[in-house]
Amino acid sequence: MLTNRRTIRIEWGDCDPAGIVYFPRYFEFFDACTVALFERAGLFKRDMLKRYGIAGIPLVDIKAQFLMPSRFGDDVVVESSVTKWGNSSFVVRHRLMKGDAMAIECFETRVWTAYPDGDPEKFEARAIPEEVKKRFGADAESKRGE
Amino acid sequence: MLTNRRTIRIEWGDCDPAGIVYFPRYFEFFDACTVALFERAGLFKRDMLKRYGIAGIPLVDIKAQFLMPSRFGDDVVVESSVTKWGNSSFVVRHRLMKGDAMAIECFETRVWTAYPDGDPEKFEARAIPEEVKKRFGADAESKRGE
Amino acid sequence: MLTNRRTIRIEWGDCDPAGIVYFPRYFEFFDACTVALFERAGLFKRDMLKRYGIAGIPLVDIKAQFLMPSRFGDDVVVESSVTKWGNSSFVVRHRLMKGDAMAIECFETRVWTAYPDGDPEKFEARAIPEEVKKRFGADAESKRGE
Amino acid sequence: MLTNRRTIRIEWGDCDPAGIVYFPRYFEFFDACTVALFERAGLFKRDMLKRYGIAGIPLVDIKAQFLMPSRFGDDVVVESSVTKWGNSSFVVRHRLMKGDAMAIECFETRVWTAYPDGDPEKFEARAIPEEVKKRFGADAESKRGE
Repeated sequence: MLTNRRTIRIEWGDCDPAGIVYFPRYFEFFDACTVALFERAGLFKRDMLKRYGIAGIPLVDIKAQFLMPSRFGDDVVVESSVTKWGNSSFVVRHRLMKGDAMAIECFETRVWTAYPDGDPEKFEARAIPEEVKKRFGADAESKRGE
Repeated sequence: MLTNRRTIRIEWGDCDPAGIVYFPRYFEFFDACTVALFERAGLFKRDMLKRYGIAGIPLVDIKAQFLMPSRFGDDVVVESSVTKWGNSSFVVRHRLMKGDAMAIECFETRVWTAYPDGDPEKFEARAIPEEVKKRFGADAESKRGE
Repeated sequence: MLTNRRTIRIEWGDCDPAGIVYFPRYFEFFDACTVALFERAGLFKRDMLKRYGIAGIPLVDIKAQFLMPSRFGDDVVVESSVTKWGNSSFVVRHRLMKGDAMAIECFETRVWTAYPDGDPEKFEARAIPEEVKKRFGADAESKRGE
Repeated sequence: MLTNRRTIRIEWGDCDPAGIVYFPRYFEFFDACTVALFERAGLFKRDMLKRYGIAGIPLVDIKAQFLMPSRFGDDVVVESSVTKWGNSSFVVRHRLMKGDAMAIECFETRVWTAYPDGDPEKFEARAIPEEVKKRFGADAESKRGE
């Protein structure tokens, strides 16, 4: 299973008056980490949207557990991988690590989506191409590590 | 059960290149709606933190389902209420409505938290004062499930 | 000169570990206030982009002076007006007021812009229609106030 | 003159419905680049605030010119340096480069600031220690103008 690891420096502007990360920021990190995971699989988002004629991979469901806070100046590592492939949806798991300890675990369910008429209210789920799924699969095993 | 309703205009800067709300923004909305719910219960956050000697009410768990997208220029309404009170934690439910349709449902589990030594890594859950719970109405006592 | 006044509640998530607004947030406020000013002039952004075939009104220049900080829970008022019209560009002035005191003054220079080939790197300034300018002009005088 | 260079990947969530960076995001980048510049000078922000008893280095003035847009997937480089030292204030210049071309130039004027009573409304400018200025190099002494 292809896993991407990304180091993130927690910035001053990521934190709130209690001195810890303002939690919506974590979801910005995770969204960028999903993009980075696809890029690691050889799918640069800008090209991917064009090639497959989709508008994006929006979320339909998200769950997260926050076990430890982080504060500005911390360097954390997010480990991301696809844990489940459906026909048109998939699940990405992110683990935000502080050293060896898991600070946050998040599961994003996303959908391969087109807006046939350019109208986001008329979005349409599309089947994920097999060649996309394969890029995250067994032959990716050898590419582990950063 | 005390419910707060807040109308939110979706701004240009809330939206992504697909023309729909960039999802972490929803969590910024919901966080502000939790604050607004407390204010509606007579607890202005700035005063509340001082009076009760807490640093904040950070999240430990979040779940959300995204049923419909929204785009810039939309006016949506977020309905917020506490659905469960524990000893030191509580659950806030947010429903983002587009007219009569629910576009998003979100459950935030938050903890009444102090940082005894001013160090966010040494946070400490505190018992939520009964007078705080009472402000959200007798119905809340029934501990409606998620 | 048409002026729009918008009250903004400073939210917890707008503030940094020093307890004051993280300054890029002010520019989010001002951007939304420019949109609100156009809407007050009868130009709802989503319709305006379609009707005039433009992609947006991006900034080419910005200046701001920060005279007083604001912190979460503050209610501030932003007064916005167009102070100069050029052929394809215009200047919006925002004054963020705390009571009678001006806390911030900002000047945004923006351009009426199309992306002829759908490529943002090939943006093209367009002449601002006279009917757009007129909406902010003399006959708008009577609409002052909130 | 000490200069810090930081590569920034433009993320999907940094961009607006026109497909280009939502401009307040640039100021988040620049703020983080100012912190990175200080870190390069041996001043890790979290330690610096404690050691010198300040609450932060908030902005009092900012100017920026936007010459070229950027879009998601772009890798840009921000070059940051202090161009002027005053008694309690200093100017940081950021140049956002796309290859050899300057896309944005920004000048931030910041103040070495304490909040003596923990009240951000009673902020107080403090003299910048000479040892801090020295860390940015002798060339900085020449007080290059904006």
